[in-house]
Formats: sequence, structure tokens, C-alpha cells
Amino acid sequence: SLSLSLSLSLTDTIHKMGDLRSKFMEVYSVLKAELLNDPAFEFNDTSRQWVDRMLDYNVPGGKLNRGLSVVDSYKLLKEGKELTEEEIFLASALGWCIEWLQAYFLVLDDIMDGSHTRRGQPCWFRLPQIGMIAANDGIVLRNHICRILKNHFRGKPYYVDLLDLFNEVEFQTASGQMIDLITTIEGEKDLSKYSLPLHRRIVQFKTSYYSFYLPVACALLMAGKNLENHIDVKNILVDMGIYFQVQDDYLDCFGAPEVIGKVGTDIEDFKCSWLVVKALEYCNEEQKKLLYENYGKADPACVAKVKELYNALDLQGVFTQFESESYEKLIKSIEAHPSKAVQAVLKSFLGKIYKRQK
Amino acid sequence: SLSLSLSLSLTDTIHKMGDLRSKFMEVYSVLKAELLNDPAFEFNDTSRQWVDRMLDYNVPGGKLNRGLSVVDSYKLLKEGKELTEEEIFLASALGWCIEWLQAYFLVLDDIMDGSHTRRGQPCWFRLPQIGMIAANDGIVLRNHICRILKNHFRGKPYYVDLLDLFNEVEFQTASGQMIDLITTIEGEKDLSKYSLPLHRRIVQFKTSYYSFYLPVACALLMAGKNLENHIDVKNILVDMGIYFQVQDDYLDCFGAPEVIGKVGTDIEDFKCSWLVVKALEYCNEEQKKLLYENYGKADPACVAKVKELYNALDLQGVFTQFESESYEKLIKSIEAHPSKAVQAVLKSFLGKIYKRQK
Ligand SMILES: [Mg+2]
Ligand SMILES: [Mg+2]
Ligand SMILES: [Mg+2]
Ligand SMILES: [Mg+2]
Ligand SMILES: [Mg+2]
Ligand SMILES: [Mg+2]
Repeated sequence: SLSLSLSLSLTDTIHKMGDLRSKFMEVYSVLKAELLNDPAFEFNDTSRQWVDRMLDYNVPGGKLNRGLSVVDSYKLLKEGKELTEEEIFLASALGWCIEWLQAYFLVLDDIMDGSHTRRGQPCWFRLPQIGMIAANDGIVLRNHICRILKNHFRGKPYYVDLLDLFNEVEFQTASGQMIDLITTIEGEKDLSKYSLPLHRRIVQFKTSYYSFYLPVACALLMAGKNLENHIDVKNILVDMGIYFQVQDDYLDCFGAPEVIGKVGTDIEDFKCSWLVVKALEYCNEEQKKLLYENYGKADPACVAKVKELYNALDLQGVFTQFESESYEKLIKSIEAHPSKAVQAVLKSFLGKIYKRQK
Repeated sequence: SLSLSLSLSLTDTIHKMGDLRSKFMEVYSVLKAELLNDPAFEFNDTSRQWVDRMLDYNVPGGKLNRGLSVVDSYKLLKEGKELTEEEIFLASALGWCIEWLQAYFLVLDDIMDGSHTRRGQPCWFRLPQIGMIAANDGIVLRNHICRILKNHFRGKPYYVDLLDLFNEVEFQTASGQMIDLITTIEGEKDLSKYSLPLHRRIVQFKTSYYSFYLPVACALLMAGKNLENHIDVKNILVDMGIYFQVQDDYLDCFGAPEVIGKVGTDIEDFKCSWLVVKALEYCNEEQKKLLYENYGKADPACVAKVKELYNALDLQGVFTQFESESYEKLIKSIEAHPSKAVQAVLKSFLGKIYKRQK
């Protein structure tokens, strides 16, 4: 029956996904073992154990979406051609480089934001005996990327492009993080500095490039493409990243902490969140006064008042509308792309985040 | 007269040095201007001013030895041939990349060590409104290196080797910093873990590679050399770096704060300093007990007791002897090198640090 074949194919998909994920995790073990025996450094037991524990704590515990998408994207670019074991390994290694990059950003971001939890566990720098050593661990994570690339891609014709790509994307992310941080100082003086164009600029640089463009760009390079010919792909992925961050801002306030793995603190932290920007857009004078008086305060009563205002302005409804409009627009730009394979890559990406709950 | 010609040539040298320094500073202005208008990021006034101020505060305020040595070394490798304007600019740009790298390490190191002063001024993260944003500024500094390299070296045959070099050296420095940090935790439990081989390992990775090997390696690459054929040069420079760090440890305790630009806190910070390692080597049981009880305490009375012990063990004399022995050994290895030009590079380096007071 149809229902049987559907549920079989669903089981099949889940098995394949589990398979992909466990294959991906095997590559993690290989890469970690190489890093723990890197001849460029003289490890002793203490330092080897330190890095081992630091990696396991910070690198593989996320959703692995960014990393897995490199493999997915590369497969789609190959248009159904079976990948060799080497291709799977290399695409996974690039995927892990992005997961390492993400871990590096998160470890440092949590220090800068003074956060407490991440992925349902205490932030790395909060653990006893770690503290500010976490800053150096972040740097070590970043350096591992170069070690992985050198170990596995040094002879490839696209090696230098890979280095340039990771460098440029990291630069853009750090620049986005910078405007995020200094905007928060400015916003604390004057909330009206927060606006949609500013929000977009922060998100484009801080999130979109590394989370959305980077995985696809890695796959394109592995497939022998020239990135300069794919500016349109970059633009679509940047927009997708902005959509993703709006979801993130939304979930920070309206998501379930058990599901998203952390307790959101954007309101307390005076973040230039999409929600506060929208609230400023829709509020009347009285509501604006309430927002100015209560936004960015640690006091739970103030946070509650801001959330009440968000509800009064029906920001959940505004978000739902934004979500469907973004989806439509993205699909339209994707379908305008000349290559069916690239379309498939972009649609697969969009499918992974559309209406996500975490 | 001899004395007149000597003093004329000295004046000449001082003028040339001043000239070199001001030319080097001009290159800084050019590089900074490029970074403040980098098309890979959308600056606004606030973020441009932030980076401008951050660079001026952290990058050019040191002794610039590392940076200037790239130019010096390259000149010596060219064996008297006049450098073109372009060559001077490029060698200076590489020199500045090392100064940027140094700034990046120092900004983060000061955060991790909880330091107060650096180069005679408050540490960057201690300034009002900066705080933990300094961690991201450190990352921005690191990313600037890649931007400078891409802007000026992308078309050079040695571009990929430059990227690999900076990446490997940064990895080694971060690894050295890691053993420095985790050793301090272990040492606090048991001071006897501190030993000369451990000290050497920390210094080799944390300081030697980036401060000594990197400038010469940059010059060698610019001169078209293959670094794999210069392992002996690397080894000599690593030893020179260890000699330099022993001086640093010595000056931390015995140097004049007005001259070295900071108040040393190695004793308070439980550092695996060459001095404490030597003290452990020479002390009797009673002195050992005193060391265990007073090392690593913030209390000035404890620090004074440790310094008294250092004096009782004549560590100043031990240092003076180490200094002349190291010098002899280094000169010997340098003179064993087949190339006179490389010898000149290494001797010039050694000359700059021998018997330094700051
Ligand atoms: Mg954060
Ligand atoms: Mg943050
Ligand atoms: Mg968020
Ligand atoms: Mg320090
Ligand atoms: Mg330190
Ligand atoms: Mg020191």
C-alpha cells in the first residue's frame, strides 16, 4: 500500500540519515586523532588530554547542520553520481572544518556575552579549571582548521582558494561580531539606533557568511567551480542566513528552552534582535516608553514586561508572516538560477531550516 | 680622527635607523588605510573609528623589532643589492603582519593573565567600554594579517607558503600558550613539576617560532627560498628565542619597570619562569620550603621573600653566565652555516638582543 511504501521510505531515510551522521562522526574521530598527534607540536599526556576533552566538549555537540550540508551539497552538485570513499571523506572533512569554526566562534562568543549555557550544558569557560584558558582554546580550535586543510588538501588545485575562503569568511564573521558588540554599547545609550538595516548588516556578517555561504562554497570548490562565478548563490545564501537569524531571535524569546538547549537572554543583553526592531516599528509612544525603560535589564520583571509588549504587538503573528514571505521570495530566487544542481543544493538548505523549532 | 669618524658613522646609523623606522611607519599608515576601507566588510563611522583606534592602541606601540627584522633580513639576503621601493614595501608589509600577530597574541594574553599594563599603558581590555570586546578585537587583528597578505601577495609564487607559514607558526604559538596555561594549573598543585626541559618546551612554542623564526622565514620566502631547506636556520632561531625568553624572565624580576614598560608579575602568577626553575635546581631543603610557601602569592611580602631567595642563590650571577654561554654557542652554530648572507641575518638578530635591558 501507499502508506506502507511511504513509511518504508521514511524508515529508509531515517536509516540513511543515521548512517550519514555516523559516517560523519567517524571522520571526526579520524581528524581528532590526527590533531592529537600533530608533528608540528610536542604533545605530552596532559596537553593531549586537554585538547581531546576540549574538542569533545565543544565541537561535535551541535546539530551539525553546517557540516553535514557540505556533504549533501557536494552530492547534489555531482547530480546523482556515486561518490567515492575519498570524496565522502574530503567533503566531511570540510564540513568538520566549519563545525570547528563554529565551535571557535561559540567558545569566544560565550566569554564575551558572559553566557552560562550552550547546547544544554555549561559554557566551556564556566567549567572549573578552564576560565580564561577557554580564550586560547578558541584559538586552538581555529588553528585546527588550517591543520586539517593542510593535512588533506595541500596538494589539491583548490587548496589556496580554500584558505582564502575560510580566511575571508572568518574576517567577515569577526567584523559582524564587532558591530554586534559595539552596537549594543550604542543601543544602551539610545535604543532608537536599532533598526532593520542595522539588524540585517549584523546578521549578514556575523551569521550568514559562515553558516550558509561557507558550506556551499566549500562544496563548489571541491566540485572544481570558481567562486567568482557564483556571486548570485552567495546572495541567496546570505538572505537565507538572515531568515535563519530572525528565527533565532524569535526562538530566543518564544522557543522552549528544553528544545533550543539554552535559556534566551537577548532582552536582558540589550541585543539588536529582530523582535525589538519590530517592536520599535509597531509601538505607540506609550509602548515605546515602556520598551526604553525595561529593555536590557536583568530584572525578570522587566523582561516579563517586554515579553508582554511583544505579545500585545502580536510579534508572533508578525513573525509567521515574515516566515512565509521569506520562504516565497527565497524559492523564487532559487528557481531563477540556471543550474538545476545548484537549485537542488539551495532548496535542500532551505528545507532544513523552514519552520524549524530549534 | 678615528673618534670623529666613529661618531659620524654612529650619527649616520642613528639617522638611517630613524629613517628606516619612519619608512616602516609609513607602511603602517598605508596598510591601516586599506583595512579601514576593506570592501569585504561594510564599515560605518562607528566601526571604522573603533578599528582605527584599536589598531593605533595595540599594533605600533612596541619595539617593532620583529617587524623591522624582516626588512633587515631581506636586505642581508640580497647581499648589498639595492632594494626597489616595491621590495621595501613588501618586506615592511610582512614585518607588519608579524607586528599584527604579536598585537593579537598580547591582547588575548593580557585577558587570560588578568594583566593591568602593557607597553607602559593600560591593557586594551582594561579600558572603559572595551572589556571583553577585546577578545574579538584580538581576532580582528589576526584576520587583518590574511587581508594584508591577500591584498599584496595573492599573485606571488610564494603566497600559499606565506599562508602556511603564518598558520603553522600561529598554531605552534597557541599550543605553547596552552602548555604555559595548563602547566601553571599543575605547578600550583606541585611546584616540582617545573623543570628546564618544560621551560624550554613552553618557550620554544610560545615565543621562539613567531618572534624569531617567523621574521627570517618571511624574508627567506620573499627571497625565493624553500623553507624546507632551512631547518638548520629554524633550529638556531629557536635557540635564540629561548635565550631571549630567559632574558624576559630575568627582566620580569630584575629589570626596571620604567625601562621594560610593565611591572613584572611572574612570581605572583606562578609562572614557569627560568628563575624559579633555576632556584629549584640550586636551593637546599629549607630554601625549597620557603619557595613552596611563597611562590605564586599576590601578597607583596611573599614576593619579597622569593626575590630575597633569588638573590641568596645569586641568580643574577647564574643569569650572567647563562647569557655569555648562550652567546658563544649561538655564534658557533651561526658560523657553521654555509651561507655568509644567512650568517649575517642571524648575527644581526643576535646583536639586537644580546645584553638587552628591555
Ligand atoms: Mg552569545
Ligand atoms: Mg554575542
Ligand atoms: Mg540568538
Ligand atoms: Mg601575559
Ligand atoms: Mg600569558
Ligand atoms: Mg615575561
